[in-house]
Amino acid sequence: MKICSHDFRVQEGVAVNLSKWPTDIAPLCRSSKHANEQLQKHARKLSALQQLLYASNRYAVLIIFQAMDAAGKDGAIAHVMSGVNPQGCQVFSFKHPSEAELQHDFLWRTLRDLPERGRIGIFNRSYYEEVLIVRVHQDILQSEGLPAPRSNAAEPCGSIWQDRYRSIADTERHLHINGTRIIKFFLHLSKDEQRKRFIERIDTPEKNWKFTAADLHERRFWPAYMAAYEDCLSATSTTQSPWYVVPADDKDNSRLIVSQIILEAFEDLEMSYPVANAAHRRELLSIRKQLTK
Amino acid sequence: MKICSHDFRVQEGVAVNLSKWPTDIAPLCRSSKHANEQLQKHARKLSALQQLLYASNRYAVLIIFQAMDAAGKDGAIAHVMSGVNPQGCQVFSFKHPSEAELQHDFLWRTLRDLPERGRIGIFNRSYYEEVLIVRVHQDILQSEGLPAPRSNAAEPCGSIWQDRYRSIADTERHLHINGTRIIKFFLHLSKDEQRKRFIERIDTPEKNWKFTAADLHERRFWPAYMAAYEDCLSATSTTQSPWYVVPADDKDNSRLIVSQIILEAFEDLEMSYPVANAAHRRELLSIRKQLTK
Repeated sequence: MKICSHDFRVQEGVAVNLSKWPTDIAPLCRSSKHANEQLQKHARKLSALQQLLYASNRYAVLIIFQAMDAAGKDGAIAHVMSGVNPQGCQVFSFKHPSEAELQHDFLWRTLRDLPERGRIGIFNRSYYEEVLIVRVHQDILQSEGLPAPRSNAAEPCGSIWQDRYRSIADTERHLHINGTRIIKFFLHLSKDEQRKRFIERIDTPEKNWKFTAADLHERRFWPAYMAAYEDCLSATSTTQSPWYVVPADDKDNSRLIVSQIILEAFEDLEMSYPVANAAHRRELLSIRKQLTK
Repeated sequence: MKICSHDFRVQEGVAVNLSKWPTDIAPLCRSSKHANEQLQKHARKLSALQQLLYASNRYAVLIIFQAMDAAGKDGAIAHVMSGVNPQGCQVFSFKHPSEAELQHDFLWRTLRDLPERGRIGIFNRSYYEEVLIVRVHQDILQSEGLPAPRSNAAEPCGSIWQDRYRSIADTERHLHINGTRIIKFFLHLSKDEQRKRFIERIDTPEKNWKFTAADLHERRFWPAYMAAYEDCLSATSTTQSPWYVVPADDKDNSRLIVSQIILEAFEDLEMSYPVANAAHRRELLSIRKQLTK
């Protein structure tokens, strides 16, 4: 199995045309069993690296998942992160904002939940919803109480979406400089595969809770969502905080790709277990003496 | 009494030399009693505008106070804001960060406490401490656990302070676009007036709690603080989120200037009480009928 993470990475400044990015690729493993073994191998490595992340306490890692419904976000998080100590890993799902959250700027509620240094934070949906669902359904903006006169000369120019891309890019740049490494996944599902998964959710009683009529309603906006994703990925993928477009029609493939990319990002971090300096070492040895008296 | 707020405003892009900015000006009022009357007049106007801010729910106002010890931050907040309904006004003082807060980027703990739309938030000290006290005492940086290799080519260049100015400016820009108006005050005290106020704090038993030996220690770093303030004011005063350098040797004067500047900022906001649309109006009238039956 050979995964080249580079193939899935959106280069900074490149315009994304999602119809050119595959939703499906040839199987990376000869069987589902083999894929699972590979995934577990990744998980063990990731678990060791996460311990190092925690002990070295220099970096935080923020992993963002965005996708259309049924693309496999929850499954990817469950399978890829299952080996990691939950004490060092927090998952936050962002659904409808509360009244109180809507009283703040659009980044506030998600930034509050950023991972601390030494930890992994996973955002299942994120502040990117503010340029995706909000862009597709612009009436949502009315609930966000933005200042009205955007044509005022004293205001910065550019559309609200350009402003939001910039706010996001500025924030991610700030976080990067201060030690948070950000990896962003778009799980790229075909419309037909979504249809099949919706039917499966209806046909399987234990999956019924995952499906509502609202999901079907959103499906009608597919082209508008693709356009919003294309614009968003093009504007906000940077060398430091890249987007990855992961073919999601095959779950084994997509989970392996996601785990490989996360592993590589961890391996790129310069981390080491803290080394006791001479004074601390002397102190430890003196304590040791007392303990063994 | 005529206060021209423009005189105290740091224009965007202008280098600040604090020795050229007065710490004292001629009395704005003929007596302390007169000054108090003026201040109360301002407070009444501000109270009305704050009600409008709350009802119109379009803008938040963030007021930042920075200064050397004993410059009168607490007094200014108490006197200028005393007429405002506390339900719409929150004051946060930022002292030593906690262990948990130090695990986040340097903006995180203050941004969490940003005012909601419709409210006034007052920061008694702020994220600016991160380019002031932290710059003067750079050993503090060690507790902030920043990523080490800043010479790495993949990292943005520029000094840590330039990076921090940019993070702050980017954040304030984002907040402005999303409806938060930011006013920043540096209460400019002379070193000699600080000496007098310290002596007064020692001589007045009820003020003893306000003084510790640490204050005297910080006083020794006066020139370094002035240099840090100059650099900070020069780099972060913008047309949208300006700094004001307020002469602080005379408390009556400084409070009047602060309240005048805040008032003007409120008057600049385009605010109006929400008007019921035709449907809501009909609904109200129908309810009225039921209530008066």
